Amino acid sequence: MKPLRLGIAGLGTVGGGLVRLLAAHGDRLALRTGRPIEITAVSARDPGKDRGLGDLLAGATFYADAVALARDPSVDVLVELIGGETVAKPAVEAALDLGKPVVTANKALLAHHGLDLARRAEAAGVSINFEAAVAGGIPVVKALREGLAGNRIEGVFGILNGTSNYILTGMAETGASFADALGEAQRLGYAEADPGFDVDGVDAAHKLTLLASLAFGAAVDFGAVHVEGIRGVSALDIAFARELGFRIKLVGIAKAADGGLDVRVHPVMVPAGTALSHVDGVFNGVVVQGDFVDQMVFEGRGAGAGPTASAVMADIVDVALGLRLPLYGVPVASLGKAEVIPVTARFGASYLRLSVVDRPGVIADIAAILRDEQVSIESLLQRGRAPGEAVPVVIVTHEVREAALAKALARIGALESVLEPPTMIRIEEIRRA
Amino acid sequence: MKPLRLGIAGLGTVGGGLVRLLAAHGDRLALRTGRPIEITAVSARDPGKDRGLGDLLAGATFYADAVALARDPSVDVLVELIGGETVAKPAVEAALDLGKPVVTANKALLAHHGLDLARRAEAAGVSINFEAAVAGGIPVVKALREGLAGNRIEGVFGILNGTSNYILTGMAETGASFADALGEAQRLGYAEADPGFDVDGVDAAHKLTLLASLAFGAAVDFGAVHVEGIRGVSALDIAFARELGFRIKLVGIAKAADGGLDVRVHPVMVPAGTALSHVDGVFNGVVVQGDFVDQMVFEGRGAGAGPTASAVMADIVDVALGLRLPLYGVPVASLGKAEVIPVTARFGASYLRLSVVDRPGVIADIAAILRDEQVSIESLLQRGRAPGEAVPVVIVTHEVREAALAKALARIGALESVLEPPTMIRIEEIRRA
Repeated sequence: MKPLRLGIAGLGTVGGGLVRLLAAHGDRLALRTGRPIEITAVSARDPGKDRGLGDLLAGATFYADAVALARDPSVDVLVELIGGETVAKPAVEAALDLGKPVVTANKALLAHHGLDLARRAEAAGVSINFEAAVAGGIPVVKALREGLAGNRIEGVFGILNGTSNYILTGMAETGASFADALGEAQRLGYAEADPGFDVDGVDAAHKLTLLASLAFGAAVDFGAVHVEGIRGVSALDIAFARELGFRIKLVGIAKAADGGLDVRVHPVMVPAGTALSHVDGVFNGVVVQGDFVDQMVFEGRGAGAGPTASAVMADIVDVALGLRLPLYGVPVASLGKAEVIPVTARFGASYLRLSVVDRPGVIADIAAILRDEQVSIESLLQRGRAPGEAVPVVIVTHEVREAALAKALARIGALESVLEPPTMIRIEEIRRA
Repeated sequence: MKPLRLGIAGLGTVGGGLVRLLAAHGDRLALRTGRPIEITAVSARDPGKDRGLGDLLAGATFYADAVALARDPSVDVLVELIGGETVAKPAVEAALDLGKPVVTANKALLAHHGLDLARRAEAAGVSINFEAAVAGGIPVVKALREGLAGNRIEGVFGILNGTSNYILTGMAETGASFADALGEAQRLGYAEADPGFDVDGVDAAHKLTLLASLAFGAAVDFGAVHVEGIRGVSALDIAFARELGFRIKLVGIAKAADGGLDVRVHPVMVPAGTALSHVDGVFNGVVVQGDFVDQMVFEGRGAGAGPTASAVMADIVDVALGLRLPLYGVPVASLGKAEVIPVTARFGASYLRLSVVDRPGVIADIAAILRDEQVSIESLLQRGRAPGEAVPVVIVTHEVREAALAKALARIGALESVLEPPTMIRIEEIRRA
């Protein structure tokens, strides 16, 4: 049978991993798909650079321009591993417009332009596959588009950013501050010199936007997703979390809710022993809740050359097998509504940490404000005694509308005896009733 | 587009669940597949029985004979949910011989006759899909045939039988004996009146045979798989396991090994904190290790109407989408060798529990035998003192060839001061280096 000819745009970590994977397993893959898979062309900013790939690309045409690669008539499929939008978007569009399927690991591109690209792909009658864009090696896109297709999805919860999870795990294990744990992650190559994309939740939000869109058959607007990162999580919070029976994780949440979808990324207190609580280090984890399957948990490496190349190859295999699915699982014309509700509409429990002056009456003032705003206290801890000095007070609330809690926190923060802006971390059970 | 017309053989728990699922989500599924999915015919032993399905099958033809159902020209796909071999096998064969794809949840049928059915399906140019046959709602067949296709699989480890896992979890939580925990599981409907199929490891071995065949692209001979159940696991072993930092689980293991495949089902001591250690109750869990993806973990419900129907529907969706894969991922002609090595060739650590007379010299005799057979002791616990009475001695060995250990255990068991046949439970790390 005719070979499937790949054009690989981008020869970074993932591109190199893919080249190695195909060299290692090309024969096995040909047996699975019934046709050889070949790399006929590649593009990279610096074609001359030594990437340690030996002569694995000896037969391939080199392009400096990804659009030219996409247009090469000897390329059947564009494999876009550049990242970002500037170069990647025109290359992907060029491939689609020529009726070539696209395999991509580019979450930012799809989070921002997914709907437009889905339309283009449909018009061209080809697919865009993006398993590697979400949760690295975990085949969760396939699970949502195919394996769990028989379910109405009720919720998706994911630890989607390995860098943040590595930092939070390090803080929990060593008691380090965020800054120190970040520094350690940077030394080990798990965090970038400019870590904002990871630790501010943007990367996780890109991935969550895609998961939410797949789960609910609706193009979720990235701009409407509430995003908070982990810079505000302190060693104190992590210690209190453990004492209260929780772990703190950066979690992407997408749930069906009254009036729309509840889609947000922020630090979450998850009860110890529940599914995401033991996903540690650079691992990713995704929980999917469906009406028939109940709760499914997926765990694996969310980044790195090998796992990401594994996901890219799964997409290429699907193309080779002739499988063609709409980007979001259903055609654009059939997409549902995806109104993202504001986070102030959240109804749930929260952890609050206040730094207060240790003197009589402070707790009473705080309790009075919470009562006024109808925030009910589940537990309250005051640790250490230091009359006249700052001490931490930790409060776990019962379930409450977040708008009410925000009002209470604004009033509490304004108290003269409260020394810092209150810390609030949402509690999510992430388990079925 | 033309509807996909299902013939459902078997209207038990899973069949009923599937009928309900299609009633609930037929419209959503038609959007995903681009064609309506309809139930045109069903078969059941007692067509008149009230199954609480109301008029959901009002338009369907009822057959008492599954083969007649398979042959009905208005049936495009046979969905075989009968179980066993007597009735299911001729029905599946009839469908395949008429060029109709088959979706089945029947692990016993495929474990015993998979290779023959794979040949028939290939000859007819149709697929046999069996997501529901392994690990219920967990889309692990799809993961192995598609999502992880870019990997050389190195090992698969699964908690595949919910009944056994429920019993072991109950024993761990309450300190109950096997008999009492089984009784409780039977009262709650999690174990059959005749529980042998589940607690003796046969069901897990059926599923493991399929996972191993998929993972290694080779038709594994069910008869060569070493199978031990959980009847020999005592409350004492569970307590010692916890003290030593382990959990006891019934695990199916399939690993690439020198000279073939290492495929076995037996109770395993897994270190607390590793992937399968916290898969509790009726949940199933599967760990897949691949050379590029590293370690993947899947967790979900392994049985029940909803999860199993979810898996069956995923297979039906694949048929509707025109996806056609060989049963074991590669065509029969390309299957690899699947020589299962004997369990005596295993090289690993083990837990031993002996009931010995508490008197001087007993430990020395045991240690001498272990030394003679070159079994090295990692730790030894002797609990309780009762001179002249029976006391338990627990030994954890270093890694050793199982044949040598078996020889040592035979000699130890023959000692006059050793009062019961020694208990041996294998230790498996189930994590990547």
